[in-house]
Formats: sequence, structure tokens, C-alpha cells
Amino acid sequence: MNRLPFLDGEQLMDDLFALGQIGRNEEGGIDRIAYGQTDLEGREWAEQCMVKAGLTVRRDSAGNTIGRYEGTENLPAILIGSHTDTVPSGGIYDGALGVLAGIACIRALHNSGQRLRHPVEIINFMAEEATMPGGTLGSLALVKTPDAALFEHPAWDGQPAREHISRAGIDLSRLHEALRKPESVAAFIELHVEQGETLELSQTSIGVVQGIVGIRRYAVSFFGHANHAGTTQMARRQDALVAAAPFILHVRDVAVEHDIVGTIGKVDVLPGASNVIPGRVDLSLEIRGLDEQVLDQAESALGLYAKSAGATFERISAKNAVQSDPKLLTALIEACQELEISYMEMPSGAGHDAMNMESLCPMAMLFVPSRDGISHAPGEYTAPEECIRGAQVLLAGLVRIDEMI
Amino acid sequence: MNRLPFLDGEQLMDDLFALGQIGRNEEGGIDRIAYGQTDLEGREWAEQCMVKAGLTVRRDSAGNTIGRYEGTENLPAILIGSHTDTVPSGGIYDGALGVLAGIACIRALHNSGQRLRHPVEIINFMAEEATMPGGTLGSLALVKTPDAALFEHPAWDGQPAREHISRAGIDLSRLHEALRKPESVAAFIELHVEQGETLELSQTSIGVVQGIVGIRRYAVSFFGHANHAGTTQMARRQDALVAAAPFILHVRDVAVEHDIVGTIGKVDVLPGASNVIPGRVDLSLEIRGLDEQVLDQAESALGLYAKSAGATFERISAKNAVQSDPKLLTALIEACQELEISYMEMPSGAGHDAMNMESLCPMAMLFVPSRDGISHAPGEYTAPEECIRGAQVLLAGLVRIDEMI
Repeated sequence: MNRLPFLDGEQLMDDLFALGQIGRNEEGGIDRIAYGQTDLEGREWAEQCMVKAGLTVRRDSAGNTIGRYEGTENLPAILIGSHTDTVPSGGIYDGALGVLAGIACIRALHNSGQRLRHPVEIINFMAEEATMPGGTLGSLALVKTPDAALFEHPAWDGQPAREHISRAGIDLSRLHEALRKPESVAAFIELHVEQGETLELSQTSIGVVQGIVGIRRYAVSFFGHANHAGTTQMARRQDALVAAAPFILHVRDVAVEHDIVGTIGKVDVLPGASNVIPGRVDLSLEIRGLDEQVLDQAESALGLYAKSAGATFERISAKNAVQSDPKLLTALIEACQELEISYMEMPSGAGHDAMNMESLCPMAMLFVPSRDGISHAPGEYTAPEECIRGAQVLLAGLVRIDEMI
Repeated sequence: MNRLPFLDGEQLMDDLFALGQIGRNEEGGIDRIAYGQTDLEGREWAEQCMVKAGLTVRRDSAGNTIGRYEGTENLPAILIGSHTDTVPSGGIYDGALGVLAGIACIRALHNSGQRLRHPVEIINFMAEEATMPGGTLGSLALVKTPDAALFEHPAWDGQPAREHISRAGIDLSRLHEALRKPESVAAFIELHVEQGETLELSQTSIGVVQGIVGIRRYAVSFFGHANHAGTTQMARRQDALVAAAPFILHVRDVAVEHDIVGTIGKVDVLPGASNVIPGRVDLSLEIRGLDEQVLDQAESALGLYAKSAGATFERISAKNAVQSDPKLLTALIEACQELEISYMEMPSGAGHDAMNMESLCPMAMLFVPSRDGISHAPGEYTAPEECIRGAQVLLAGLVRIDEMI
């Protein structure tokens, strides 16, 4: 294939705004919460969009919608996917752009009468957002059938996830049928909004995602002696908050030093009265980074610092970092260069379906800018020309990958 | 009077333990919460104790119990007082020791057939503890009739204080009758447990209280920008908690530097999710010190520091420091010297009824040690010999003051 087919950017934006009407609330936010009525309506709409673009659609047992565009050779499929569910009062771009841009690529091929060597599948994953326990349930089902216990955990509204899932007509006992064989899949690509300010600030159109950061969470507790704030002299105090304060600054310093991010997002000061010296401070610490070895070093530095201050430091959870496939990265970078679209390599600080897909096949992601870094809110915005550039790079990358692998 | 009458220490301790049976709960803590059934029983018991010691007892319209021991001259009364109400699950010493030691002084005078020049009144104040809005309601009624609105504020159990008060048979419309004329009162002395570790650590028997600290409370809010903890690079963050951490340490430093106490006892981090950068941190700050000018300086230093970090700094309340009367202090110090009992001058870091009394007449206080600084808890303890020494100094001081003023 010497010439890229024409990608209809206007149609892509029309699709995005049309889908953005489904689940729209009074504040202009989008409520398409996984498995709910408006989410199912959104999926149905996207399914019709797939059919019109020339895809053959099926739904798997996890509720994922999969539109297939056959190739010219008997090869495993190249997958493009994202999700149309949202957080409560989310925006219209997060997830939806990736699904609709994938459809736009197939529409471009179909309208010009072209097929690739590989079949291409556009996947609208079920339940990506963390409204359900852990999030990314749809893509997870392609690679692993989780323990039933997972679905007993509460969803965003406190009800067990299982209830939401069964109300959507999904039979959890058939979840294993959604598993994909590695030999049926050649690669996975996802286009997504950045959800950060890096691209906007550097005035770059495309982020070529090197990988998705590992996320480690810790419970850190500092101890003191709760005592009368009036009768206990300063020299005699054991103030857990005063002990914790340098740690807060140390987290920042260690993160900067290791080129990762580190956040203390929750703080509980006990007993929590204005006239009582804090006897205990519980902190929720999170670090994220692309390099597990660097995360190990940061964890070790933070743990040592906390323990030297008499604190307890416990790892609560860890999601490993996943790396994008170098060949796919090269193809996406070459696509940017071919189209003369500015790009930069960057990590993804947020989790995505691509994280699960990486255990099934080579994976890569593309980011487009998020204005002011806002996401998961009605103010989420990516300019039309940026959305369209993202879809163009996705298409050019798809064609290169098809030729390359 | 050349010789001090004999103070019966054994009787004092018997009284303390007997009163300590009233309101005793299963954990060994004392529940004599102001205006409640067991508080009224405790007051009744103390009233009988007053009568047996030779006092003529009345109750004023605020519920204070006042036992009077006439003098030999037509002079204003010297008042000795404290309280028998407790916090929920409090100890047996806080408040009760001061009332019973006052009675022990009169018993000593009465048993030896002595009278002083001045009449002496032992007052068991109503509602000293902050279980009721603001605390020290009984002593307040002697100097000022508060707005009715005060009694609509919630008591410890969430009910309006007014309901507790009326259930105890007190008619708030007659509260003004409890007001005392300054010309009827010559001086006020209170013996109390220290509720801190200063005496114990310095192995000193008596604290001669220079005054009661002023208490100022502030609401301090630091602002940042709540954002995604994964996608927001460290250099782009405005983390309200990172902004607040140096202030926590600065409060400690300013307090040490100004020889006051400073405490941040409450912290609210918003929105308070482990994966969101704190957008706002609300701190409750309290400083206490004996010198209003020093408090002004500390307030100014802390306010400037907070504002330079973009925080808001608002004074929520201020209780002025009150100073003990220098002549009374001298009399109490001479009493310690006469009895060869070790003493030190010190501020009171906690509020007391003496704070209100200072606006009526010259005031002074005595402290005895609190083991491990514990108070407001079942573990509150002062050794018998320390309680008795406190009562002996109180008696010797009373006699000196009677001769001096």
C-alpha cells in the first residue's frame, strides 16, 4: 500500500459528539457507568457505528463489543480498542475517542475498498473505569478469568459488582469464553487522551507511549503519644503529625530524584481534636513509574526513611509496569514522521486496557493532548484537529504495523 | 495565728476515694457528667461532707454548691473552689481534689475551734468540664450571665445544653441571681491536679500557678490543584499537602522559640483519595501561652508564614490569658517554704474555673503532680502524700492570705 486512504475527520468528530449525547447529565457531564442503562445504550450506538463502517460485530461473554474487518491473508488479528463507559459525570473523550478513531480507520479502509493483510478488530471494552472493582474488567476477561470473589467487591455505588453485571444480562459463569488465544492476536494499539498536561505544555500533538507505569500503594503510619495540647510542654511531646511532616516532603524529593511520581492523597490524624496532640497519623502513599527497578529503589528509600522515624511502612498493592513493544513504537513514530505530526515519547501515568492486553500480545498506545490536563470531568477537552491527528496516526501506524509484522 | 491547725490527710483521702465511687463505671472511669444523675449525687455527697466539716451550705441559681465558714471580722469572703463533675470516664482527682481539700482546710480550722478574720467559702462549681459548651459554666455565672444562645449549643452528647440544665432542675431565667458582687469577695484560690508532667519530671511537690494560658485557635487552609496522581508530573504539581508540611514543622519551631505550646490537632486533606493530588488541606491550629504579647508575636509569625505559602489563616477564637495575683502568689510560695515543701512557679496550660474568677477578684492556683501527665482518663493518679501536701499548702496559704489582705 503506497497511499493512505482518506480518514474522514469530520465524521469522527460527529460520531464523538453524537455518542457524547448518550448519558449526558444536566451539568454537561457524561454518566455512562459500566453495565448501566446508558452505558448499554452507548455500546449499542457504537455497535451500529461499527456496522456502518463495514465491520462484522459480535459480543463476547464479558460484554465486550468486537467488530472485525477481515484481512487478505490468514493471519492473527491486529486489535484496536478502548472503552465507552465513563466515570460518573465524566467527559466525552476518555475512552470514546479510542473506539471511534478505530472505527474511523476501518471506515477509511472500507470506503476506499482496501483491506490489510491482517484482519483488524475494533474492541469496545466493557467496564474500563474504576467504577467497578479494579477497573479494566472487559480487557481482563480476554487474558484471565478472575476469581468470583472479585465481583463481590463493591462497585462505585457500594453494591457488589456482581449485581451490576447480572443486571446487564452478563452470565459470569460463562466469562471464560471471552478468553483469547495468543495465536489469534498479532498486536494491540490504543489511542487515548493523555489525562495530563505534558503534551499541551510542550505543544506536541502526539504522545507515543513507552509503557504504562507500575502503581504501588503503601499504608504508612506514624506514632506519637496523644496528650493534652495545653499541659504538655513542647520538649515532652511525641507528636505523630510533626513526625510525619518531613516524610511528606521526602516523598516529593524521592519522586523527583527518581523521575517517578509520588503522592500522599489521604491523611488520617488521630484522635483528631484541636486540643489533643496527634497520637497517630495514617498516610496513603502511592508511587508510579515505568521502571520496576527504579520503583524498587524508591520504595526502599521511602521505607527506610519511614522506619527510621518509627513509622510502619506496608505495601498494600502493586500493579507491575508494562512496556510497549519496541517494533510497534517504531511503527507509530514513523507514522508521525510520515505525516509530519509532532510527537514525543512518554509514559502513561494512568492505567488502561492496554495494560491487560500486554500479557496477550505486543502492545502500544498513542496519546492526544488533554486541555489543562483535565479528565474524568465535564471540562475534559481535546481540540477536533488533535483528535483527528490522533486518528490519522493510528491509521498510518496500523498500515505500517500490518506491513511490518 | 502562730500555729497551723492539724489537717487530717487520711480523712481527705477517704473522702476522695468515697466520692470516687460515685459514677464509677465498669472500666474504673468516673462518669459524673455535668447536670446528670451521678453528678447530682456527687454534689449531694460533697454537700454533706461540707456540712460535717462545719460549713453552712447553700446552692445558687446556677447549681453551684457554696459552703460558708464565717470569719471574726466583717470582711469579704476568701473563696476556695473547684468542681466535682468529670469528663466521660474521667479520673477521681481532677476537680474533686480541689473541692475536698478546701473542705479539709475548714475541717482543720473547725476541729481546732479556729476562725479566720475573713469568712471562707468552699465552692463546688457546676459544669466545669467541656462536656457542656465552653465549660466552666458554674463559675461563669458568678461573673457574667451568658446569652441564652450559649445553652442551645450541643453538649457532649449532641443535645442542647439547655435540656441537660433544665433536667437538673435549674431555671435559666434565674441565672443572673448567681452573680457575685466584687465587694463580697476578697480572693479565690484553687488546688488542682497539674494534668501535665512538669512537676513529676522535676520531682517537685507543688506548682504555684503564675496564670492560666491564653488559648487561640486558627483555621489554616492550604490550596493546591487536585489532579490525577498518575498523569501529573512532579514539576507541574500544586500539592496542597506538600505546601502544608513545612507549616506543620514551623508551628513546632515557632512554639519552641516563643516558649509557648502550638498544636495542629486536626487535618482534613481534600478530596482525600489515594490517587488524587491533594487540592486543599484544612488544619486546626491552637497556640497557648501566658503572655498575650508573646502570643501576638507567634500569631504574627505563623500567619505570615502561612500567607507566604498562599494559605488562608483565620483566628477562630481567643481566650485571653489570666494572671495570678502577685500577693497571693507570694503567700502561697511562703506557705511552701514554711512547710518545707518543694515548689516551682509554672503556668497552667489548661483552663480552670479560676479563669472566670480572675475577673471578680485576685486569683491564684496550686498544682499537685499528675503521674505520667495523665488526666481525663481512668489512669489519672496523684499519690496520697502529694494530695495531702497540696491541701496543707492550701491551708497554710489560706491562713497567710487571711492575715495579709
